[in-house]
Amino acid sequence: MESKYKFVSVILALALVASLSRLVYVVSADADKVEQTADAKSVVWQIIMSRKSVRSYTDQPISREQIDTLLRAAMAAPSGKDMRPWKFLVLDDSLAIKDFAAKVPRAKMLAEAKAVVVVCGDMTVTGDDGKPSYSWVLDCSLASENLLLMAEAMGLGAVWVSVHPREERIQEVRQALNLPEHLMPLNIIPLGYPKGDAKPKDKYNEDNILYW
Amino acid sequence: MESKYKFVSVILALALVASLSRLVYVVSADADKVEQTADAKSVVWQIIMSRKSVRSYTDQPISREQIDTLLRAAMAAPSGKDMRPWKFLVLDDSLAIKDFAAKVPRAKMLAEAKAVVVVCGDMTVTGDDGKPSYSWVLDCSLASENLLLMAEAMGLGAVWVSVHPREERIQEVRQALNLPEHLMPLNIIPLGYPKGDAKPKDKYNEDNILYW
Repeated sequence: MESKYKFVSVILALALVASLSRLVYVVSADADKVEQTADAKSVVWQIIMSRKSVRSYTDQPISREQIDTLLRAAMAAPSGKDMRPWKFLVLDDSLAIKDFAAKVPRAKMLAEAKAVVVVCGDMTVTGDDGKPSYSWVLDCSLASENLLLMAEAMGLGAVWVSVHPREERIQEVRQALNLPEHLMPLNIIPLGYPKGDAKPKDKYNEDNILYW
Repeated sequence: MESKYKFVSVILALALVASLSRLVYVVSADADKVEQTADAKSVVWQIIMSRKSVRSYTDQPISREQIDTLLRAAMAAPSGKDMRPWKFLVLDDSLAIKDFAAKVPRAKMLAEAKAVVVVCGDMTVTGDDGKPSYSWVLDCSLASENLLLMAEAMGLGAVWVSVHPREERIQEVRQALNLPEHLMPLNIIPLGYPKGDAKPKDKYNEDNILYW
């Protein structure tokens, strides 16, 4: 009997050592892996490359908390003289969205959207010279790109529907939303969870890089 | 002796069970944690919120591979009618950068930069109507924002130096780089590893969100 328990003890001791060494390995590998997957470069790269124009959406709603996150990301964009000359008009009522979609018939995807953001330049935001920003189109574009990338990162679908600088489209949106004079619509961004399988395009072209 | 080994066996068996259960716990927790930290939403959010204007750079060089990554990110931006009307002029020779910096004296941070990208609209890129893009300013702005976010994610510092739409600055850049007529400079983006402690601004303002 003695040798039997001695044998069992040795086996158990070996198993314990194996188990503990595996535990140490897993815990340290875990630390490496977390560092690696948290790698901002690869995640941001992946989202920038995955961003696509999504024009069809499921019935899943979007919350005001999600919209707030998207607009916080938008407002983190740089702007000329740090003037932040933007306003974000949001429609998230389904009737209001359908009404807007009917008035902007060119943008068919609007009818399915669960929320719509219209990014506008605000001409009442003035600089030291008392004038509106000379760069509101650029600034609002940067804010919009932040919004589009954040939407992709959140698993949402979105698309930039062009308004500015085409005068007939500006007037169309202005009338549909009854915009005050000081708000200049840049674009319309419908949002929703993606339906279908919109794919990103590979737009790399080395001819666009000119070492000067 | 028998009871001694029997006791040792029981202790070892308990230790083995404890070790194995801890192993199972760590391995499953590991999976959760990796999923959580790989969470694109939190990483992209963090980078968008961390992006800042960096105007001073260390002596650490930037490789052409890094520049290629930045410009691939830039070219992934959306553009009106998918025309991609952009060209990216790159200076990465220190003498060329110093020469450019001397010719654009307003942008002092240029002299320290390890690489400089000038984002340009290309008027030879034409659409179905045979005309240049009506939205090159917007498109090149979106590409630039992708570049700035990718730089932040790579630990690089950058800043948007405004050129367009101010005519005197456009002419200054045009002459300094001897640009052909069809290239319209939008901005100048100096790049380098950050020196100093530039901080991002909190630009959230709920008054900029208008539920309509």
